[in-house]
Amino acid sequence: MPLPAVNLDAMRVFGIDCGTEVTGFGVVDSGDRTAQPQLACCAMGAIRLAKAHALSDRLDQVFRELTAELERWRPDCVAIEEVFYSVNAKSALKLGQVRGVALLAAARQSIPVAEYAPLKIKSSVVGYGLAQKEQVQFMVARLLELPELPQPADAADALAVAICHIHTAQTLLRTGELSPSRLKKPSIAQGAAR
Amino acid sequence: MPLPAVNLDAMRVFGIDCGTEVTGFGVVDSGDRTAQPQLACCAMGAIRLAKAHALSDRLDQVFRELTAELERWRPDCVAIEEVFYSVNAKSALKLGQVRGVALLAAARQSIPVAEYAPLKIKSSVVGYGLAQKEQVQFMVARLLELPELPQPADAADALAVAICHIHTAQTLLRTGELSPSRLKKPSIAQGAAR
Repeated sequence: MPLPAVNLDAMRVFGIDCGTEVTGFGVVDSGDRTAQPQLACCAMGAIRLAKAHALSDRLDQVFRELTAELERWRPDCVAIEEVFYSVNAKSALKLGQVRGVALLAAARQSIPVAEYAPLKIKSSVVGYGLAQKEQVQFMVARLLELPELPQPADAADALAVAICHIHTAQTLLRTGELSPSRLKKPSIAQGAAR
Repeated sequence: MPLPAVNLDAMRVFGIDCGTEVTGFGVVDSGDRTAQPQLACCAMGAIRLAKAHALSDRLDQVFRELTAELERWRPDCVAIEEVFYSVNAKSALKLGQVRGVALLAAARQSIPVAEYAPLKIKSSVVGYGLAQKEQVQFMVARLLELPELPQPADAADALAVAICHIHTAQTLLRTGELSPSRLKKPSIAQGAAR
């Protein structure tokens, strides 16, 4: 039985993949007027931090560049990966510093933030939670109809979390757990209000 | 033999003690015109985060309140504790998010940041690197001639790292490793340029 046609609001999601050296971002639109929603990549990129700069200056660079991109693309939501706790404490702290600044950039513009576990993101994009990085890049390119694999991998991961958010919102709409008018509220994704 | 009288620049240091629930801050002036520099506490306080709020909103609160205090006190330098890596990765990530936002607040106002290891802070304030929290509070109160122990402990820790920075700068000035004109540069403390 075909899925019922749903009239979903168009949505723009800004995905962020935080890293201590490179932070990827990607902007995905869903122009979903049918049961087979179209996805489109508006932009992708990566913020590269110079190790030679002071930590506070590097954080300032992440904040400035993300703020500029958020102002440019005005997304309805920011989607970000939940943290992968198996890294060691030192790495986690460094990553946390960048992540804190990324979350702040969203908060400063009153953009809701949704967080997704890595398994959930891979399942949503590849259909398999333990997919390899290359499989994620391949499926992101396919879903967004990109002419080549998204580069760098950090940008591909950012696009993946944005797609995951759109898929999640669409699923909740189809099952009636979410009304279209609530699409742009922070509560549409698990973990969004933490 | 008495120390030679040195004509140190007066300096205002803003100490920050980051925490996922409470972030302490403390402002210390050194009006050091003699070999026995005077220290004075200008302000201390704590930013308490409501667990019920979204993470990005809590980070925004830390950023807003620290930014307001930095604008109010206009310190020459921010001093912050280096991270204590023995915590687990999950705690380190949470702490890192707050720390990233605190460092950003300093960077946004072009205030140099100096970082000090916990052992160095305790040695500088108590004379013993493995001092207990209460000893730190007691010595902070004594050095700043406070009528009672600084509360909460997070504010006392913030004052301690500010005092540590002043002591370090003064030592470097006395030994000739630092000229008074460089007092307000970020390079005065170890780790400041990381």
